[in-house]
Amino acid sequence: MSFSADDHRYMARALQLAERGLYTTDPNPRVGCVLVRDNAIVGEGWHERAGEAHAEVHALQAAGDAARGSTAYVTLEPCCHQGRTPPCSDALIQAGVSRVVVAMRDPHAQVDGGGISQLQAAGITVDSGLMEAQAVQLNPGFIRRMQRGRPWVRLKLAMSLDGRTAMASGESQWITGAAARQDVQHWRARSSAILTGVGSVLADDPSMTVRLDQTERQPLRVIIDTNLSTPAGAKILHQPGQTVIMTCSEDQAAREELQNAGARVLAVPPNARNNVDLGAVLDQLGEMEINELHVETGATLAGALMHAGLVDELIVYMAPTLLGDAARGLFHLPGIETMDDRLSLQIKDIRAVGEDWRITAGLKKS
Amino acid sequence: MSFSADDHRYMARALQLAERGLYTTDPNPRVGCVLVRDNAIVGEGWHERAGEAHAEVHALQAAGDAARGSTAYVTLEPCCHQGRTPPCSDALIQAGVSRVVVAMRDPHAQVDGGGISQLQAAGITVDSGLMEAQAVQLNPGFIRRMQRGRPWVRLKLAMSLDGRTAMASGESQWITGAAARQDVQHWRARSSAILTGVGSVLADDPSMTVRLDQTERQPLRVIIDTNLSTPAGAKILHQPGQTVIMTCSEDQAAREELQNAGARVLAVPPNARNNVDLGAVLDQLGEMEINELHVETGATLAGALMHAGLVDELIVYMAPTLLGDAARGLFHLPGIETMDDRLSLQIKDIRAVGEDWRITAGLKKS
Repeated sequence: MSFSADDHRYMARALQLAERGLYTTDPNPRVGCVLVRDNAIVGEGWHERAGEAHAEVHALQAAGDAARGSTAYVTLEPCCHQGRTPPCSDALIQAGVSRVVVAMRDPHAQVDGGGISQLQAAGITVDSGLMEAQAVQLNPGFIRRMQRGRPWVRLKLAMSLDGRTAMASGESQWITGAAARQDVQHWRARSSAILTGVGSVLADDPSMTVRLDQTERQPLRVIIDTNLSTPAGAKILHQPGQTVIMTCSEDQAAREELQNAGARVLAVPPNARNNVDLGAVLDQLGEMEINELHVETGATLAGALMHAGLVDELIVYMAPTLLGDAARGLFHLPGIETMDDRLSLQIKDIRAVGEDWRITAGLKKS
Repeated sequence: MSFSADDHRYMARALQLAERGLYTTDPNPRVGCVLVRDNAIVGEGWHERAGEAHAEVHALQAAGDAARGSTAYVTLEPCCHQGRTPPCSDALIQAGVSRVVVAMRDPHAQVDGGGISQLQAAGITVDSGLMEAQAVQLNPGFIRRMQRGRPWVRLKLAMSLDGRTAMASGESQWITGAAARQDVQHWRARSSAILTGVGSVLADDPSMTVRLDQTERQPLRVIIDTNLSTPAGAKILHQPGQTVIMTCSEDQAAREELQNAGARVLAVPPNARNNVDLGAVLDQLGEMEINELHVETGATLAGALMHAGLVDELIVYMAPTLLGDAARGLFHLPGIETMDDRLSLQIKDIRAVGEDWRITAGLKKS
């Protein structure tokens, strides 16, 4: 299938609409839809919030009768199952749409090509794969969860140019500037959950909330806390939204104290070193419909996630400063002793954010 | 003075010509010259090698009679003193040039505006300051040496994304890829001297030579070696070109052994900690007509140079790998204990070089 310049233009518009749901659709995917007839847009829509209308329904409502004979551009395959709302494939068929252009197949087990088949069975021409890479980027977490039952893991770190996160004393405030800290808010806001370790809770007492005008949604907060050492007075427990503590501890008193402080405490199996098993944590979060998992933590947990190959995307803010080799490092990676053991990354993007630089990287698949 | 688009175009060409001397003019500056008459280039030239003709002379020779009434675009003020070759101001006057456009004043004590004055006294219009920033970038070392008697210090380092240069064992080969290593050759080749510490000589036994098709010139090699610990068999002593060892040691036997191995041994005063005084080294190198000093060394000497504010330009190659916090750091900075002590940099450029990234930074002047 080759697509025309107009096809690209309308799908680009649908992708733009989908992005409006970046902070709100959770746990649903971000989806946009454009209806075009006689080379003019007759309806637009995007999915805003789970339980509310899908992108296609909004666009059909906007188009009214003009939907008949139109082409629908959708960033994700229309659903064909009754979920929180009725199937979109039915709605498109009933509206008399004559062609549907789909950016990517919906990996949801109850769709997965079924939406496309239904449309085709109704005599509608379906062309798929247009601007698929961009559509995938909109929903890395939803896709990962549908395909593997786990969230997309994004690890955020801040360092000096010489790879240091804090002084030997632990002093670490304001390594990066205001623009970088504001940028972090956007990554937090698009996530389903924000994960940290008890070490960071004890050292920095962070709130791990989103402070952004564009959204009031607070992602679930998750603390990895093998021994239930989180203090009941920790700030993170007393913020809007929910906090979950993942633990191997069976200390009932500690559990009750934290539950009384508002936390949900979940038992997770231990790994070989008797720490919380991180793979099990991701499985658990997948079941809890966590799409994008934003991680902010210290060198130990960051290193463990990295070394286990569980990080999909690394976001490192690099400040134009030097702290020297007595300061704390970015990753504790105890198993790496020779150059052959090193972890290989693929750097995808480096750009200036205020006076700092943001590096985006992924683990290199060998 | 406002310059025309044509002025900019011809000066850009002169800058391009000057750059042809990047690897060869040492210890002279890189200079280019374009002669223009009736809006056409009638002669071009650049300085190629100390002792040979200056850019203006080459351009005048190429132009012949056409030089009369022409405008000369020169990237550096024409010299007015008898050096290794006769003054260029005289040559321009005799050739009947009617206007001279100069990118920047020559900071050489025997010129410093004198060339411009002579041209003006001969009735020639002189306009200066066109594309001065670009002209300065061609000759940071020459300008620094003329103004302060010291070279421009460029410190080159290679690190993993997490700021590590080598494993704890010292294993460090091939942190960066072939493209980055080739890029380093260009920085070495444009330098007057390459400096390293005895620690690097003992650990890695480097050659510190230029291996580049574009030049056969070997920069002076300089070893900082407080106690004369350089082995007489070290590779660095047995390469084409000269090696100088800067020491505080008065050990005559060691000195003679190194001299017999071909090295020049220079006494330098010690600093308060009885190490070679790095400021005194730079003074010494300034006297030896070193313009750009390229430094490749370990964390101790790199940290000492950085902490003393002696580094003008930091070139860091960042490989897309993680080595972990047991690996060796980039800078040993023993005096830095709180965030307030950190060194502030200004990042000027970040760009991909093969699979690695090159960061160019300077110390932030407060």
